Amino acid sequence: MRMLINVPETVVADALRGVAAAHPELTVDVDNRVVVRRDAPVADKVGLVSGGGSGHEPLHGGFVGPGMLDAACPGEVFTSPVPDQMVRAAAAVDSGKGVLFIVKNYTGDVLNFTMAAELAEDEGIQVASVLVDDDVAVTDSTFTAGRRGTGATLFVEKIAGALAEEGAPLEKVEAIARRVNESSRSFGVALSACTTPAKGSPTFDLPAGELELGIGIHGEPGRERRAMMTSREIADFAVDAVLEDLRPDAPVLALVNGMGATPLLELYGFNAEVQRVLGERGVSVARTLVGNYVTSLDMAGCSVTLCQVDEELLRLWDAPVATPGLRWGR
Amino acid sequence: MRMLINVPETVVADALRGVAAAHPELTVDVDNRVVVRRDAPVADKVGLVSGGGSGHEPLHGGFVGPGMLDAACPGEVFTSPVPDQMVRAAAAVDSGKGVLFIVKNYTGDVLNFTMAAELAEDEGIQVASVLVDDDVAVTDSTFTAGRRGTGATLFVEKIAGALAEEGAPLEKVEAIARRVNESSRSFGVALSACTTPAKGSPTFDLPAGELELGIGIHGEPGRERRAMMTSREIADFAVDAVLEDLRPDAPVLALVNGMGATPLLELYGFNAEVQRVLGERGVSVARTLVGNYVTSLDMAGCSVTLCQVDEELLRLWDAPVATPGLRWGR
Repeated sequence: MRMLINVPETVVADALRGVAAAHPELTVDVDNRVVVRRDAPVADKVGLVSGGGSGHEPLHGGFVGPGMLDAACPGEVFTSPVPDQMVRAAAAVDSGKGVLFIVKNYTGDVLNFTMAAELAEDEGIQVASVLVDDDVAVTDSTFTAGRRGTGATLFVEKIAGALAEEGAPLEKVEAIARRVNESSRSFGVALSACTTPAKGSPTFDLPAGELELGIGIHGEPGRERRAMMTSREIADFAVDAVLEDLRPDAPVLALVNGMGATPLLELYGFNAEVQRVLGERGVSVARTLVGNYVTSLDMAGCSVTLCQVDEELLRLWDAPVATPGLRWGR
Repeated sequence: MRMLINVPETVVADALRGVAAAHPELTVDVDNRVVVRRDAPVADKVGLVSGGGSGHEPLHGGFVGPGMLDAACPGEVFTSPVPDQMVRAAAAVDSGKGVLFIVKNYTGDVLNFTMAAELAEDEGIQVASVLVDDDVAVTDSTFTAGRRGTGATLFVEKIAGALAEEGAPLEKVEAIARRVNESSRSFGVALSACTTPAKGSPTFDLPAGELELGIGIHGEPGRERRAMMTSREIADFAVDAVLEDLRPDAPVLALVNGMGATPLLELYGFNAEVQRVLGERGVSVARTLVGNYVTSLDMAGCSVTLCQVDEELLRLWDAPVATPGLRWGR
């Protein structure tokens, strides 16, 4: 086991202590596993809360800060957080203007966020929820009824976060989050399996010289296995899978995402191929983000997420953001 | 070979095309392998140029932009760039106020940057050079006479970049770069070897269940191999190795760096242990940066770099920076 850990049981708590030490701009409740922007609740602002299993960092804790999430609830590795975390997060960020839950479509997350929404409403917090289900690879998979939520989560959190930061009411923040999800599609590819601390060995068996097309971010099976392909061939396959479902008639945001262990050098090379295919298919790219954003521990591989944008979505994408994992601005 | 590439021969060129597509704020000369901030040369500003073998991304190309480097010259993977690249970079960024070469201490880089400085001077460009040699693990190693240059390069580029952005003259920018290097020390640990595209197999043999203490960023041998250690034990060893040499009597900047394939979840957990040791040793930490900044392709592992700071260095560290790999500001 080649892991930089103490024992599997404390991996998430250890990481949260490390986040607290590195990021004084965040309030980290290590015991209750909630990460909150320090100035929460922000007056007259809808609070954005997300969360999910750990192992996908910087998602979600690394996206807490001005212009994006108000709070994140990390579960155990690849395991949904519990409703208590979500209710605490909602209470910590609610200014009285309501809270939006951003939920990736996995059975455990959906159940727990649904229960948390009811509990929070009981406490007088107005809650809306948006489900992210952008992964076109498969319908119904391990952990999922319907499509899985992957890279589009970053687009939803960033764009809805920007609108919330402007003071928009809950129904508008919810509506734009829904619109971003509906405008986004993803497809992922694994070049290696990932290893969870608890298991200590690869979560699935991927022989050397093969790759898995349509992989999930927990190593859930994809569409098919093939002999190793070139970056060019992978880009063709992944982008076409996305475009077949999205059929954009306006410019897109492109997220060329690493699964964790693929070097940035390779990811940028892959981006060149993604841009080539998009050009060949007549798709105009408004903005491109390349890096490890929605990861799967130490998995080698990549995913492509496209989000069709109009002027409003593009303006909100470009708005300032200041989080550990995503940061730009004036 | 689990790589996201076309063929080994085009890895660097492919990556540069991908950088160009993702970052319109940079000018990328793919043929001549020079990455330059688009607004270069910036009037009345010293130009900062660095470079080195590829495979350490985001170092150096990802650190080009306002507040940091003006240009970077990427070589082949783990291979020095050539003088022609450096001269082109110097010419592209020289406003007449001179250029600072920031050189990691590897034999090839030192030779080529020295030659480039002479050639640039012949073209009427005033050049100063600073050598980064912060790695306390070993003296004289593969590729190196003296200590290797590793994580401190980020501190040198950021702090000298901030001073240059303020309009300081070349001798002051050079002096502060030298001071940052002299105030910094690093120590790295490998949990796995890395694989270069050209070789296609691990650059060295590290049996499962062992780690290498004092590894170099090209997989050069370190101090010793041991049976796998916990995060806590690794932090004790690495931080003590740095402190033994640095002996800080003022606050430090801490870079808790991933070698590439170690998940952010583990790196943050490791950071918690690094902060614990520093606290136990009575060292005050002014700022902490956690992430994959000075990498070694797909190597699993980490390094710790500390830089002792005074008020001026801390102010320059905090100054705005806007590059693909490091970004904060007002």
